[in-house]
Amino acid sequence: MARAYLIVLVWLTPGLLSFFQMQAQVSNNARPNIVLIVADDHGREAVGCYGNKVVKTPNIDRLAADGTRFENAFCTVASCSPSRSVILTGVQSHSNGMYGLEHQQHHFSSFDTVKSLPVLLQQAGYRTARIGKFHIAPEAVYHFEKVLQDGGVNNPASIGRSPGEMADLCKDFIADNSSQPFFLYFATDDPHRSNSVLPNGATFFDGSKPNAFGNTENGYPQIQRTTFNPDEVIVPPYLTDTKATREELAQYYEAINRLDQGIGRLIKYLKASGKYDNTLIIYLSDNGAPFPGSKTTLYEPGMKLPLIVKAPQPKRQGFVQNAMVSWVDIAPTLLDYANTPAEKPGMQGRSFKTILEQDPVNGWDEVYASHSMHEITMYYPMRVLQEKRFKLIYNIAHELTYPQALDLYQSYTWQYLLQHHIDSLGSRSIQSFLHRP
Amino acid sequence: MARAYLIVLVWLTPGLLSFFQMQAQVSNNARPNIVLIVADDHGREAVGCYGNKVVKTPNIDRLAADGTRFENAFCTVASCSPSRSVILTGVQSHSNGMYGLEHQQHHFSSFDTVKSLPVLLQQAGYRTARIGKFHIAPEAVYHFEKVLQDGGVNNPASIGRSPGEMADLCKDFIADNSSQPFFLYFATDDPHRSNSVLPNGATFFDGSKPNAFGNTENGYPQIQRTTFNPDEVIVPPYLTDTKATREELAQYYEAINRLDQGIGRLIKYLKASGKYDNTLIIYLSDNGAPFPGSKTTLYEPGMKLPLIVKAPQPKRQGFVQNAMVSWVDIAPTLLDYANTPAEKPGMQGRSFKTILEQDPVNGWDEVYASHSMHEITMYYPMRVLQEKRFKLIYNIAHELTYPQALDLYQSYTWQYLLQHHIDSLGSRSIQSFLHRP
Repeated sequence: MARAYLIVLVWLTPGLLSFFQMQAQVSNNARPNIVLIVADDHGREAVGCYGNKVVKTPNIDRLAADGTRFENAFCTVASCSPSRSVILTGVQSHSNGMYGLEHQQHHFSSFDTVKSLPVLLQQAGYRTARIGKFHIAPEAVYHFEKVLQDGGVNNPASIGRSPGEMADLCKDFIADNSSQPFFLYFATDDPHRSNSVLPNGATFFDGSKPNAFGNTENGYPQIQRTTFNPDEVIVPPYLTDTKATREELAQYYEAINRLDQGIGRLIKYLKASGKYDNTLIIYLSDNGAPFPGSKTTLYEPGMKLPLIVKAPQPKRQGFVQNAMVSWVDIAPTLLDYANTPAEKPGMQGRSFKTILEQDPVNGWDEVYASHSMHEITMYYPMRVLQEKRFKLIYNIAHELTYPQALDLYQSYTWQYLLQHHIDSLGSRSIQSFLHRP
Repeated sequence: MARAYLIVLVWLTPGLLSFFQMQAQVSNNARPNIVLIVADDHGREAVGCYGNKVVKTPNIDRLAADGTRFENAFCTVASCSPSRSVILTGVQSHSNGMYGLEHQQHHFSSFDTVKSLPVLLQQAGYRTARIGKFHIAPEAVYHFEKVLQDGGVNNPASIGRSPGEMADLCKDFIADNSSQPFFLYFATDDPHRSNSVLPNGATFFDGSKPNAFGNTENGYPQIQRTTFNPDEVIVPPYLTDTKATREELAQYYEAINRLDQGIGRLIKYLKASGKYDNTLIIYLSDNGAPFPGSKTTLYEPGMKLPLIVKAPQPKRQGFVQNAMVSWVDIAPTLLDYANTPAEKPGMQGRSFKTILEQDPVNGWDEVYASHSMHEITMYYPMRVLQEKRFKLIYNIAHELTYPQALDLYQSYTWQYLLQHHIDSLGSRSIQSFLHRP
C-alpha cells in the first residue's frame, strides 16, 4: 500500500513527496527485518574473517565486512539444545529448563512459562518463520508462525544439510510484500558431524574413518562442492596434530564451505528483494567445533564463537567490537531492534544494540556460562565466570570422569588417539582432560 | 438397564430369572471395577498387618484380611514421580522418560509415545477418574476422564492431605449406575512430610523440630485425630534411635492413621454401593518411608513395600503371597483383570492375576530396579537386581557423594544426627551411607 501511495505522489509536489518518503523511512527504520542464522558446531577457528586462511567462507566474511564482527562473543552452554534455548529466550539453560538435549531419550524441554523470542516478536507484529534444525521443545514455547521446512536431528535427510535449498525455501517469505517486518530463523545442520545408519535403522558414528560431516559424492543442490587437502588444514592448538584430525578437519571445512554458500544465497535473495539494507542479520554458532576439547566443554574452543552482526543501515563497516557478549544477550538485543515494549520477561542478558558500533565500550567485561547434562547420562554440571583476563570454571561433579558426547567419543579424531596410545589432546594430557580439578 | 430388566423378570419364571442373573454375574466378573490406592512414602514397617503393633491401620489390615498381602513386593524406583510413572505404565522409569520429579525445576516427564493404564482402560470401556496427588506428566499421557479433585505437591492445602474428604468426593463416581466398570486412582499426600511456608511464599522443611507430616491441631474433616507417644513408636533398624527420630515417627504414625481412616471411608462407600465384592482393590505406596535410609535409596526400606490386593470375589482371604513382584507388574495385572486385549504396549512387567492366590508359585523370584535423579541436581544412577537371598546394587556414579532429598536432608531426624555428631544411621556409619561402593 505504501508503495502505491508513493507512485501516485510522484506526481505531487516535491515537498510533499519527501515528507512521505521520510515517513516511510522512519517506519522502516523503526522495524527492521531480522535474520538469525544459527550454525551447528561452527568453531571460530574455522572462519575466514576470524583468521583462518584455508577454510573458504567468503559470504560470512562479506557479512562481517558490511557490519560488525565480535572479538569476544561466547555461548553460555556448549551443547546444541541448551544453547539454542538460551539464544531464543535470553535465559540461561539451567534457568529455562533445557538442561540437555531435546531429542530421543534425552528428552529435555523448557518450562511452559518461558517466553521466547519468536513468540514475543510475533506478538509485536512480526511475521515469524523458521527453517532447518529446531532441536528445542516444547513447540508452544518456541512457536514460529511458519515452519518453512522442519529439520531433523542427526538425520542425513534433514533440510539442514542442504543450505542452498534452505535459502530457496526462504525466498518467498523474504520477498513477501507484507507491511509487517519479518523474523527468519535459519538454522543449518552444517557443519555438525553426520552419522551412519545401520541396516536396522539404528544410527552411530563410525570412528574407524573420517566422519563425512554431511559431505556426499553427489553434493547438494545449488552448492558448488569444494574439497580441502588434509595437509593444508589448520590444526587448532586444542587438538593433536594427527592424520585422523587432519582428515576430519578437511571434511569439516567442506561442510563449513557448504554452509557459507547457503548464506550467500540467502543474502542474494535479501538483496534481490531490496530488504538487505533494512535487515538485521546475525551469524553465530550454537557452540564450538565438533571435536574433543571444544563442544560440550566450557573451555575457550567450546564457548568463544563467531558472532557477526550486520545492523540495519550500519554506520560502521568491517568494524571489530571487543565488548564481551554472550548468547543470553541475543534475544534482548533483537527485541530492542524490533522496538518491542520493554517487556523482556525474566531475561538474564541485555541488549547490545546501543554499543554495537561503539568503541571503546565500558561495562561489557564479563560473561557467565553453565553446563548441566548434554546427553541424559552426561551429568557434568559446570559454572563459569569469565572476564577478559581470567576465567573460573567450577566443576561441580569433579569426582566424575568427564563424559564425552557420543559423536565425539566415537570420532576418528578421538579413537585414533586411543588406538595409538597418544596421551595428549592438544597441550592437555588425556588424563587431565577426563579428570578435572 | 440390567437392573430394570431384572425387576420386570422377578415376575417371570424362576428358571428364566436365574438365567438372566447368571448372565449379569458373568458380565460383572468379566469386568471388575478397579480402585488403585497409592500412598505417599508409606514404608511397610509402619503397617499393622505387616507387623507393627503400634501404628493403627485397621482399615488397611481389614483389606488384607479380605484378600492377599504380598510379602515380597517392591517399587522399582524409590522416588515419587518416577515410581508413579512405573505404576501407571508398567515400564521402568529409565525407559519411560520420568527420570526424576515432575514439579518445579525438576521438570521430568514421560515420553509422548508412552501408553498409560488410565488411557488403555478408558479405551477398553472403563470410566476413569483420579483424585489427589498426580505428580506425573504430561497430562495427555496420563489422562483420566475425570479429575475429581487435583492435588498439589508439597502444598499444605492439597486435597491429598484430607483423605476423608477425598473419599467423600469419590462417592458419586463410585455409586454411578453406569453399565461401564470404573477405574479410580486414589492418591493421598499422606504420610509424606509437609513443608513450612515462609512469609514470601517460599517453602522449606524446618529441621529444628519434628515435621508435622500434615498433622494440624484442628484435624481434618471426617477424621478422628489420633496421636502417638514417641516413647512407644517402633524405631526401624535402618534409623538411629534418637529423640528426634521418635518424635518424627510419632507424627508420621498420625498421618498414616489419617490415611487409613480415609481408606476406611472409601471402602464404606464401595460397600454401600454394593460394588465392594466385584471391585479389585490395590493398596500400595510409591516408595519407602520419608526418613534417611529409606526413600530415594534402593535399600530394602526404600524398595520393599506394602502391597495388598483384594481381588473381585476372592477365593482366599487373609492370604500371604510370597512371590516377588514389583511395580512394573501393576499395570499389566490391572489390564488383565479388566480383560483388555493383549495389547500392553512395551510393558516390562507381567500380570500376577493368575498366581495371586496360588501357593507355592514358581518363576517369581527376582525383581529389577533403577534410579536416576529424584531432584534435578540429585544425579545418582543405580541399577538393582534382587533375588530372594541376594541383592546387587550397581552405583553407577559411586564417585559422587550420595545426594539426599531436600525433605530428608532438612529433616529433624537427619539434622539431629549432624548436630549431635552421631556417626550412625541405624547400623551404617554416616560416611558409608554417603560414600558408596
